[in-house]
Amino acid sequence: MERTGAAAVIIGNEVLTAKVVDANGPHLIRRLRETGIPLRSVEIVTDDVDAIVDAVVRARSRAEYVFTSGGIGPTHDDVTVRAVALAMGREVVRLPEMVELIRNRYDSVTGEAMRLADAPEGTVLLHQEGSWFPVLTVDKVFLLPGVPQLFRLQLETVLKQLQGTPVFLRCLYLRLGESTIAAVLDRVALDMPHVAIGSYPVFDAELDYRVKVTIEAAELAQVEEALARIRVGLPADAVVRAE
Amino acid sequence: MERTGAAAVIIGNEVLTAKVVDANGPHLIRRLRETGIPLRSVEIVTDDVDAIVDAVVRARSRAEYVFTSGGIGPTHDDVTVRAVALAMGREVVRLPEMVELIRNRYDSVTGEAMRLADAPEGTVLLHQEGSWFPVLTVDKVFLLPGVPQLFRLQLETVLKQLQGTPVFLRCLYLRLGESTIAAVLDRVALDMPHVAIGSYPVFDAELDYRVKVTIEAAELAQVEEALARIRVGLPADAVVRAE
Repeated sequence: MERTGAAAVIIGNEVLTAKVVDANGPHLIRRLRETGIPLRSVEIVTDDVDAIVDAVVRARSRAEYVFTSGGIGPTHDDVTVRAVALAMGREVVRLPEMVELIRNRYDSVTGEAMRLADAPEGTVLLHQEGSWFPVLTVDKVFLLPGVPQLFRLQLETVLKQLQGTPVFLRCLYLRLGESTIAAVLDRVALDMPHVAIGSYPVFDAELDYRVKVTIEAAELAQVEEALARIRVGLPADAVVRAE
Repeated sequence: MERTGAAAVIIGNEVLTAKVVDANGPHLIRRLRETGIPLRSVEIVTDDVDAIVDAVVRARSRAEYVFTSGGIGPTHDDVTVRAVALAMGREVVRLPEMVELIRNRYDSVTGEAMRLADAPEGTVLLHQEGSWFPVLTVDKVFLLPGVPQLFRLQLETVLKQLQGTPVFLRCLYLRLGESTIAAVLDRVALDMPHVAIGSYPVFDAELDYRVKVTIEAAELAQVEEALARIRVGLPADAVVRAE
C-alpha cells in the first residue's frame, strides 16, 4: 500500500463505552477533505497501550501523516505518548522545553503535572496560538489532545504545514436500482482506475432518486470523461439530475 | 488479548471522504453499551479488499463478535463479502437460499443482482423482520449493510441473539485539575484492576467542574469501593457532585 495521505487513531474508552460521541474523528475527516489530504482510515481504540501501539504501527504503514486524538495528559489513562514511542521504536524522554513551559504555567508543579513534559525522543513542539500547550509532533505523527476545543485548535496548526491536492467530484442521481446500473459502473471503474466511483443506494420513498453515484479524481477532465461514459451506458431516462 | 466483546469495521469511502457522516458506528456503540457487550475497537476503512481483510483479521483477533457495516451490494465497490471470506480463509459461494430470495424479489434478475447471493462459505442467514434481505452471519461475524435504516434493523436482529453483561457506572465531578488528582487516581486504578477509571478534563468556564471522573465495573460493590477510595484521597472540597 502507498504511504500517502493520512490515517487517524482515536484513543477513547469514553467513546467506545458511549459516554461521549466522538467529535474529533468527523471533524478531522472534514478538515482533511477540505485541505485535499486523502484519509486512509480512522481507528477508535481503548486506552490500552498494546491496542494503541498496534493501531499506530498500522496507521504509519498505510499513511504518510498520522493523527492521534486523546490520551495526552497527566493521569493513569493517558498512555498515548508511551504507545506512540513504542510504535516508533523510540524512548520516552523528558523535554526540557516542555519542563520550562509547565514551570511557567503552574505555581506549584506536582510530579504528575511534569508527566506532560514526557514525549517520544525526537519530538518537535509547534507553538500553539491561544494556548500554552504546544503541538507534539514526531516524524509526521501528530499527538493531538482529545478535548474537542484543543483538538481543533491544534489541528489547524498542523494543517497549515501540510500540502493537499484538491479532488474534483461530480454526482449523478439515478432513478434505477443498483442491480441495473452495476454493469455500467463496473466497466467504467475498470477502464479508469484513477477515477473513484461510488454507488450509494437510498431506501426512502420521499426522495426522487434511488442511487447516488459519485465520481472523483484529481483531474477534472477524468471526472468529466467518466461521467459522460456512465451517462452513455445508462438508459436515457435513468438520470434524475447531475451535480 | 482476550477474545471477548465486539469489534466493528466500517467500510466507507463515502465516510472517509466526508460525503456522509458515519451514523452506524455511533449507533452500534450505543446499542452495544445498552446491551452490555464491551466494544474493543471501531475501524473505518476504504472500500479496498486488502484494507478490509486486514481490519477484519485484527477485529477477530481481539473480539468474539465482529460487525461490519457497508460494502454489501451488487456494484463494483461492494467488496465486503470477498474481503470477509479472505480474512476467514473461506471460499465465496453462491447460496441457493439467497438465489431463491432474489428470484422472488425481482421480476427480471440481472447477473449483477445475483451477486447478492454470494457469501463466505458457511454463511448462515437470519430472517429479517420487515425486509426481504436476511442478515448474513459467518461464525460470529455479522455483515450488516451500510444504509443506516437497514443497518439498524439488522443490528437488532443480531443483538437479540447475544448475551451481554451490564456495567455499573458512577461519575465524580471535581473542581481540581487533572495534575492534582492524578496521584490518587493512579493508586486506585493500580489497586483495583477490574475497575475502569476514566479522567476527562473540560476547558469550559461555563461548567462548574474541571474534571469528570468515571468509575465502572461489572460489580456495583467494586464501583462503590473505588469511588469511596478516590473521595478519601481527595481534599474535602474537591468534589462538586457525584452521580
